Amino acid sequence: MKSFSLNQATTKRWPLDELVAGCVAAGVEAVGLWREEVTDYGTEKAASLVRDSGLTVSSLCRGGFFHDAGWYDENRRAIEQAHDLGTDTLVLVSGGLPDGSRDIDGARRHVGEAIGALVPDAQAAGVRLAIEPLHPMFASDRCVVSTLDQALQLASPYPADAVGVVIDTYHLWWDDTVWDGIALAGQENRIAAFQLADWITPLPSGVLLGRGLPGTGAIDMRRFAQAVRETGYDGYVEVEVFHEDVWSRPGPAVLAEAIAGYEAAVA
Amino acid sequence: MKSFSLNQATTKRWPLDELVAGCVAAGVEAVGLWREEVTDYGTEKAASLVRDSGLTVSSLCRGGFFHDAGWYDENRRAIEQAHDLGTDTLVLVSGGLPDGSRDIDGARRHVGEAIGALVPDAQAAGVRLAIEPLHPMFASDRCVVSTLDQALQLASPYPADAVGVVIDTYHLWWDDTVWDGIALAGQENRIAAFQLADWITPLPSGVLLGRGLPGTGAIDMRRFAQAVRETGYDGYVEVEVFHEDVWSRPGPAVLAEAIAGYEAAVA
Repeated sequence: MKSFSLNQATTKRWPLDELVAGCVAAGVEAVGLWREEVTDYGTEKAASLVRDSGLTVSSLCRGGFFHDAGWYDENRRAIEQAHDLGTDTLVLVSGGLPDGSRDIDGARRHVGEAIGALVPDAQAAGVRLAIEPLHPMFASDRCVVSTLDQALQLASPYPADAVGVVIDTYHLWWDDTVWDGIALAGQENRIAAFQLADWITPLPSGVLLGRGLPGTGAIDMRRFAQAVRETGYDGYVEVEVFHEDVWSRPGPAVLAEAIAGYEAAVA
Repeated sequence: MKSFSLNQATTKRWPLDELVAGCVAAGVEAVGLWREEVTDYGTEKAASLVRDSGLTVSSLCRGGFFHDAGWYDENRRAIEQAHDLGTDTLVLVSGGLPDGSRDIDGARRHVGEAIGALVPDAQAAGVRLAIEPLHPMFASDRCVVSTLDQALQLASPYPADAVGVVIDTYHLWWDDTVWDGIALAGQENRIAAFQLADWITPLPSGVLLGRGLPGTGAIDMRRFAQAVRETGYDGYVEVEVFHEDVWSRPGPAVLAEAIAGYEAAVA
């Protein structure tokens, strides 16, 4: 397992140049980036900034959202952007049900077909598609892929270096089958990213911005880190937290706490 | 499958005597009751009211909350209350993690032990314990039993007429293994209750009061009704919805919509 990576979403309001300088100052080796922030900054400029700093881009979030009509072109742009940023990992959040639909099986089949359509583009660009199962509370509006098992099934028709899965503690912690799933994902060389966020309650309205920094909630982070390490996973460990209280605080302070949470998890 | 039952939580502010009269007027055969409301009204008085009206009590919610120190005595009282109300079904919501704990496996084991301790009391009272898996978004603070598969595993050491499971569409709809689980639960004669509520977004703060009346959300109710019917389940179909907007409306109007949602589901 490689070292800590700061996912940009954790310090959403930290300008990218300050974030990069802050990571370098803190001895951080890698960052996970988000498409919107990178596009606002300028993809080429962001790529240069990060490359010149010596940081690795551990992943780009996110492609997917296959319920949108323009999913194919948008995901091709995402693959290109990942390539331009020099990362080998594009995280896919599948999207939810089409408007008015109740056909979750059909939506999941469509995700499989969409991934199949993108594999050639991803392979040509040297970018791996990383299917992220999201917590079942997002199943209708954000991600019909709710379990690691489903993500592995969707990945299974494709080579492991083309399609992998994301292990995010926040989304998977409640699932008692996840430990077998992590072991299987490791055997199949499918683990493309490992992300830490903690489960805290009460959940806020809309439930998207309810994550805690690792160590502040109900999840046994050490168990996850050990399970992922035992697979031989050799990627970074991203801390990816969305919470208004975290976003409202200074980047360097949040970075320090994210590193401390990571260290407690992997210790 | 028997007919529609109004779960009292759907019309939380409808006084019990008006609710009973409203159900009789609407030709409803059964109601699901809640302990707190029944206790406030007076258990004996409630039992007489319902019995004299000719209504059946399809279930009593809820026992469980095994993370509370006083769980044993409280659940014995719940079993007694179910017996006094003349219902054969006590719904158990297991409870979450103990304060500060991250040991979800241990919490689940404790649920199994607690159920084992209660089985003799339940059998003596002629009350079946009905383990309800709740949506994984409640795993830390309300119910560590998150899937039908887990509920069936917890029930498996005990006779089917002593310990069953609850199929609630709201909690299980996202799970692609639920169809096999319903079939298995039917084979084992474990289905103790079947409840309808729909999944609507955005979820409200705290996520407890976010349910929609059947037909208003993302869940394929007909598929659930068909799967449960195919098992030979011979109990009632409760509509159980928690939502501030539903609660703020007149009981008779909500009852009519609940019946319409039920009819569309079972048609």
